Amino acid sequence: METLAYFNGVIGELDEVMVPFNDRSHWFGDGVYDATSCGNRIPFALEDHIDRFYNNMRLIDIELDMSKDELSKLLRDLTLKVDSPKTQLYWHATRGTANRSHVYPQGVKPNLLIMIRPFPPVDLSHREKAVTVEDTRFLMCNVKTLNLLPNVLASEKAKRAGCEEAIFHRGDIVTECAHSNVHILKGGVFRTAPLTNLILPGIARKHLCKVCDGLGVPVREEAFTVGEMMDADEVIVSSSSTFGVGLDAIDGKPVGGKDPQLLKRIQDAAIIEFFEYTRQFDKAQAVRRGEKVLA
Amino acid sequence: METLAYFNGVIGELDEVMVPFNDRSHWFGDGVYDATSCGNRIPFALEDHIDRFYNNMRLIDIELDMSKDELSKLLRDLTLKVDSPKTQLYWHATRGTANRSHVYPQGVKPNLLIMIRPFPPVDLSHREKAVTVEDTRFLMCNVKTLNLLPNVLASEKAKRAGCEEAIFHRGDIVTECAHSNVHILKGGVFRTAPLTNLILPGIARKHLCKVCDGLGVPVREEAFTVGEMMDADEVIVSSSSTFGVGLDAIDGKPVGGKDPQLLKRIQDAAIIEFFEYTRQFDKAQAVRRGEKVLA
Repeated sequence: METLAYFNGVIGELDEVMVPFNDRSHWFGDGVYDATSCGNRIPFALEDHIDRFYNNMRLIDIELDMSKDELSKLLRDLTLKVDSPKTQLYWHATRGTANRSHVYPQGVKPNLLIMIRPFPPVDLSHREKAVTVEDTRFLMCNVKTLNLLPNVLASEKAKRAGCEEAIFHRGDIVTECAHSNVHILKGGVFRTAPLTNLILPGIARKHLCKVCDGLGVPVREEAFTVGEMMDADEVIVSSSSTFGVGLDAIDGKPVGGKDPQLLKRIQDAAIIEFFEYTRQFDKAQAVRRGEKVLA
Repeated sequence: METLAYFNGVIGELDEVMVPFNDRSHWFGDGVYDATSCGNRIPFALEDHIDRFYNNMRLIDIELDMSKDELSKLLRDLTLKVDSPKTQLYWHATRGTANRSHVYPQGVKPNLLIMIRPFPPVDLSHREKAVTVEDTRFLMCNVKTLNLLPNVLASEKAKRAGCEEAIFHRGDIVTECAHSNVHILKGGVFRTAPLTNLILPGIARKHLCKVCDGLGVPVREEAFTVGEMMDADEVIVSSSSTFGVGLDAIDGKPVGGKDPQLLKRIQDAAIIEFFEYTRQFDKAQAVRRGEKVLA
């Protein structure tokens, strides 16, 4: 298959599968999701993503009638059905199919939706640009919900400015991006906002912190200001599809580029971790030898 | 038909019609909605609701390929297809069907979804109960979007406490409810939060203000505190399905009940307006004679 759409056991291409009229995603965005990238047909850090997904379901009282192991097996199996070995794997659970009413429906099972599609390789030697946007989102940004309209609007604003990301800030404090976390390097220290209700606990963020630990780079989980970001040695955005990409401009002003060696050491270590997890050991070795390999 | 589901021209019962996998409501809740109640198969205050809907679409850059008149005609026509003369009419537009990407898709038309179902008559002599919930929603509450998860969670909290509504407050300031606006009567004055980005410009709210004007009741558009609400003569919640219902308890403490005559005058005038708009002149006359008629 070129792409894969799954809804409660029905499988087809993305333009074939349909969702019931009364699915609560339509009325309320009443669900949570997760996503990761697959290399060599293996979903990266799947245990982490599954753990977060079950935690998110718990936070909004959705109980999927499937164990973590069953869902993991289903996701791994479906990944094998798609032609491309390099894909994005997305899944979400909604509270189910029921006539529109804000309160939880009774006796209704959650709906599981899964989407898999080819995903282009990531070139981390490339730098991206961003705009800043006041963070007017709700105060449960730690939950990966289907309520993403502010993220859509911010992303469109970035695109119209010729940028790839929008960096949210509450007043002067940077929180995260429209679809990734954001971090800075300053004086050899990796700094990232702490895990509160204002940011998503990114899996890529977690792995970057681990990678820094392994490299002996101090990690400081403390929020930074817009000014500190503009003045940082490097600004890095991370998600499961971008790992950790450096920025070279924010709001049209040049940023980062002052510690490219450390940025590259962190990126290489992150890519090696991805390649090893997805059993692409030859590519991991090539990165170790200093060769450029797209992730 | 008992119920009516409409999606881009396809019509069936609510359990028959399906929505494409890639509709952007699934990924982002990327759309806006509106709803009203129909009496005598006539949608109440449809022009107001249509105006608000087109304004909401404009606020998030959705351009439906249908004029206000065309949509009004479609909604009125569909209302006639349903057996019950007393229904709820709901519709929403999403940004369209496209592979998941935060930025707006190019060359894609919005999707229009319409839902009509029988709705029970409203007895305004009945009082309801509410709980208070800290308002952690995003800062675009003036837009009627499909991002309603906080409203779902608050409504469920209300239900578990044996209540019908959840009243949001930011700190000490009351904003609105999970699915209605909230107002107070104090010393003969009708007080309601001003139209900012913190509350939805309710059509029922607008009509209550107009009704109060007609009755010579002063209207003060100024936010009130939780304390002022607890101490008010009457607390009223309003939506297009409830018109204006009085509360008798909030968080388990008795509220209101100190100006039932004025509350009833306002409710009667609101119901008469509904009956006259929906050409149920006999019922309007009965209310004028002091008879109890369910709306």
